Amino acid sequence: MSQSGRIIAVDWGTSTLRTYLLDESGTINAETTSKRGILKVSDKRFEDVLADEVAQLGVVARCPIICSGMITSRQGWVETPYVGCPAEISDLAAQMMVRDTERFGPIYFIPGVMQHSPEPDIMRGEETQVVGLDQDDGLCLLPGTHSKWVNLEDGRIRGFTTYMTGDLYGALIAETILRALPDEHWSADDFLAGIRRGHEEHRQGVSLLTSLFRTRARSILGLERSAGSRSYLSGLLIGAEIGNACSIYAPARPVTVIGDEPLTTHYMEGLAELGVASRVAPARSAPRGIFQIALIKGLIL
Amino acid sequence: MSQSGRIIAVDWGTSTLRTYLLDESGTINAETTSKRGILKVSDKRFEDVLADEVAQLGVVARCPIICSGMITSRQGWVETPYVGCPAEISDLAAQMMVRDTERFGPIYFIPGVMQHSPEPDIMRGEETQVVGLDQDDGLCLLPGTHSKWVNLEDGRIRGFTTYMTGDLYGALIAETILRALPDEHWSADDFLAGIRRGHEEHRQGVSLLTSLFRTRARSILGLERSAGSRSYLSGLLIGAEIGNACSIYAPARPVTVIGDEPLTTHYMEGLAELGVASRVAPARSAPRGIFQIALIKGLIL
Repeated sequence: MSQSGRIIAVDWGTSTLRTYLLDESGTINAETTSKRGILKVSDKRFEDVLADEVAQLGVVARCPIICSGMITSRQGWVETPYVGCPAEISDLAAQMMVRDTERFGPIYFIPGVMQHSPEPDIMRGEETQVVGLDQDDGLCLLPGTHSKWVNLEDGRIRGFTTYMTGDLYGALIAETILRALPDEHWSADDFLAGIRRGHEEHRQGVSLLTSLFRTRARSILGLERSAGSRSYLSGLLIGAEIGNACSIYAPARPVTVIGDEPLTTHYMEGLAELGVASRVAPARSAPRGIFQIALIKGLIL
Repeated sequence: MSQSGRIIAVDWGTSTLRTYLLDESGTINAETTSKRGILKVSDKRFEDVLADEVAQLGVVARCPIICSGMITSRQGWVETPYVGCPAEISDLAAQMMVRDTERFGPIYFIPGVMQHSPEPDIMRGEETQVVGLDQDDGLCLLPGTHSKWVNLEDGRIRGFTTYMTGDLYGALIAETILRALPDEHWSADDFLAGIRRGHEEHRQGVSLLTSLFRTRARSILGLERSAGSRSYLSGLLIGAEIGNACSIYAPARPVTVIGDEPLTTHYMEGLAELGVASRVAPARSAPRGIFQIALIKGLIL
């Protein structure tokens, strides 16, 4: 099937590659999803991999390609320097890097964002998703392996904080004594018990180093049934994350949650349990953001 | 070589098995060490494994065997109920469990210790090492996979706290984004930089979930050379552990550090960096503790 469009938006992360064909109004006319994230591409054959996906989009005419995500890191295709905070959409548009290719013509790479103060932090890809919200102020949450809380002020990324929550959860159940926790069905009750405990222990200044072991002790001593479950452990970590992030950013309006099911729902349930209002962002924030950046750059003719 | 002795002390942990032949004064006349920890013993053939070790001790006459450590857990040989805190040596002696065997006669198993309040926690084996110190008051630290801080008052274990520090460190460098940290030689400078950072972030109430990711950000942004090393990561975790433990126990006298090199030295350097005095415990605290418990129980004739 042949498709017309004005730009191809590429959301290329560590584990997943998504491409989108958008028309001049930002409508998505075609899309692909594959597991060919940057870590799965050998010998940096990014152009060949991209050609496969673009062929599936069925594009009839050449149009600008704009990439976002870990594809712009050292392990990716073109390493872009980070834009400093506060970062606005015009900075992202202006500081894109371009690679000319015979097959596609110029390919654009959106830079990541860094923060030096109050604490050093980095992102690649999330800045584009946040731009795609078309939201000028407030706190955004992008849960995941490296969960990000991004604070917007007057249309700028003012500051952000990353939590290794998903990455740590995976390591705990793969490699530590907590691998003994049985892999049962998701339990909302256990999760919310963990949320409350994680938040409370964060509030008390308890280190996760001991908080995590108490999970084991509570379970062995039969003090708390939920402590013997992975849902509880997940809640314990997310509760600590929410506690820390809210102490930094004190959200005055609902937190916008960007991401996929079921993680977004779990986070929103956790936020609600702690009295923090939230709302879910529209889907496909990455191609929306790429479209906005392309508009500013004048690539949509 | 044949040896005489009054008791055989067995320190049987998850990964290591150590046996000792002691005379009536507590002097060690022979000892063995093997990697046959309880997780390496298939089909619970603990008696056969123990027979191999006892044969190597070269004992001439049958004498009581007393075991301590994870061998008393559900995964071990004889599961002993925990003694509650405050726990004293007479409780440990009185609540030993006995298993009669044809080959050895009675074998004694020292119970672990549990705490319900202020926070649930458990230990198996460390209580015996602490008894072996012959120290009535003060704070003891047993660093390791599950690092323990044990508070002694009037010869009793008054309270304790476990930190998953070593377990978490291993999981982080095996399974998370921090596996990218190069495996270089130990750097005391990087370690101490991590100690200071981990302590400071604990003091500020920063969650390890974000503190750990900052390690990556600092390294990538080139802000702190040490942040790109495993020694720094080790310091970061240990600094957070020391910060939390000292806020709970506020040690008024030097902390007694029990364990093996090089970990004990690293912890003592970390403690010194944070202004906490420490001293190293005499070696072989486990057989010393077993001997003390055997004396109380009247097993040394």
